[in-house]
Amino acid sequence: MTAATFVLVDGQPATSISVLDRGLMYGDGVFRTIRLQAGQALWWPEQIAKLAADAARLGIACPPAEVWQQDVAQAAKQWPTAALKLVLTRGSGDRGYAPPQAAVPSRLVVAGPLPAWPAALWETGIEARLCELRLARQPRLAGIKHLNRLENVLARAEWDDPALQEGLLLDQAGQMICGVSSNVFIYRDNELLTPRLDQCGIAGVARARLMARAAAYGLPVREAEFDLTALLAADEVLLTNSLIGVWRVAKLGRHVWPQPVIYPVVREFLHA
Amino acid sequence: MTAATFVLVDGQPATSISVLDRGLMYGDGVFRTIRLQAGQALWWPEQIAKLAADAARLGIACPPAEVWQQDVAQAAKQWPTAALKLVLTRGSGDRGYAPPQAAVPSRLVVAGPLPAWPAALWETGIEARLCELRLARQPRLAGIKHLNRLENVLARAEWDDPALQEGLLLDQAGQMICGVSSNVFIYRDNELLTPRLDQCGIAGVARARLMARAAAYGLPVREAEFDLTALLAADEVLLTNSLIGVWRVAKLGRHVWPQPVIYPVVREFLHA
Repeated sequence: MTAATFVLVDGQPATSISVLDRGLMYGDGVFRTIRLQAGQALWWPEQIAKLAADAARLGIACPPAEVWQQDVAQAAKQWPTAALKLVLTRGSGDRGYAPPQAAVPSRLVVAGPLPAWPAALWETGIEARLCELRLARQPRLAGIKHLNRLENVLARAEWDDPALQEGLLLDQAGQMICGVSSNVFIYRDNELLTPRLDQCGIAGVARARLMARAAAYGLPVREAEFDLTALLAADEVLLTNSLIGVWRVAKLGRHVWPQPVIYPVVREFLHA
Repeated sequence: MTAATFVLVDGQPATSISVLDRGLMYGDGVFRTIRLQAGQALWWPEQIAKLAADAARLGIACPPAEVWQQDVAQAAKQWPTAALKLVLTRGSGDRGYAPPQAAVPSRLVVAGPLPAWPAALWETGIEARLCELRLARQPRLAGIKHLNRLENVLARAEWDDPALQEGLLLDQAGQMICGVSSNVFIYRDNELLTPRLDQCGIAGVARARLMARAAAYGLPVREAEFDLTALLAADEVLLTNSLIGVWRVAKLGRHVWPQPVIYPVVREFLHA
């Protein structure tokens, strides 16, 4: 337990959860990562809608938005600026994989410090690497931010060079999917492309927001299949998530994108 | 929390674990299911060796066998006959997928009642179904009994007919892999075949034991790729795990195997 963390379990300050919780036993749950800023949860309506949608795909009953909102308000009093995590598990149950009919879902809210990224990263762009691990294809889980995240853990364990901010992930078929902690967009031929996430990957809220805002701004954007070669040939590569907003990739291996192209515009309308 | 359960966390009676444990946050850990019988942990040397091997593949330091053995002895005093679960997680850490250098693994032992299977199942054979879910192919995780088990949960949620004891799983490529909670063998042309588990599935201790014993007994056994058609054409289908030992499949959908073939022999040498 990191001291500098505020935790609520089912709305009460707590530090622990039952050993028999299926979130621990099977990763049987979903989560969200949210930026708390001046006491406000960024992109809240989209976040809570996505949490409920992901829970529904696993057959877990999601508490109403108001209940989560009360938790978040409590956390925001302690940590007005924070990286906030909401976790919903199927709850405790008897031994075995079968989801118990009577299970009561567990609701966790964890607030901690935002990662200490230098502000310059948003100006200069970041350096990424290509991960060796390739994501498995599982349509039943694709797009969901669920608690089975060993692929992300193993991919992130591939590097410890602090100069590298992100690792890009292909799937088993060689298609570009996402970053370890982010979604990916490429800009080419005056349009934004982002990988289809019907086989693997997490469909993040920042990704959905960028897609909606780009369309509203008149910038063509669509989901597509593309591989590493297509990414390297793009005019620009962008990464999104709810903590960073959007970054542009300045360097991937030996490949360099020296100047921003559409990034300044995207950055502006994403946060507008 | 089920009342009728005995739990040790790092060797101490406890019921809860830190919310920040990576076992919960990411499924970042491994486990074993073991049959406790008259105070003895069945197939202990194989179980503890497999736990350590699985942990090593994830880069988690596994406590020595003696430490686990003391926990198991404590549990066996309370529950001499039980379904025992050992869980090892990477421990708690700061936010983010990167495995912390300083993480101290968490060691859990949970003892509870054995499932109430009718003894007749070992005589008559069991009824299985084919699951709709198809397992993802991920060589980096294949064979490991890790805590990312949402595929098993979703597959097990496909049926609630108590007459069905197991569901069989194909992978995304249509190869037969395993049962939801068991490994699969088929018997044909006087040899036993069991799916290769280099793409997905869990390589169980009962499976390894059956392979070793069959070879020692002079019964040819090997890993192979085979699909549902080959399974249906087999003389016999066997399922293994550490709680049941071995069952034969008497019925799968409309397909019936009325009589045991090699099962009585396998059952005997597996437990000898």
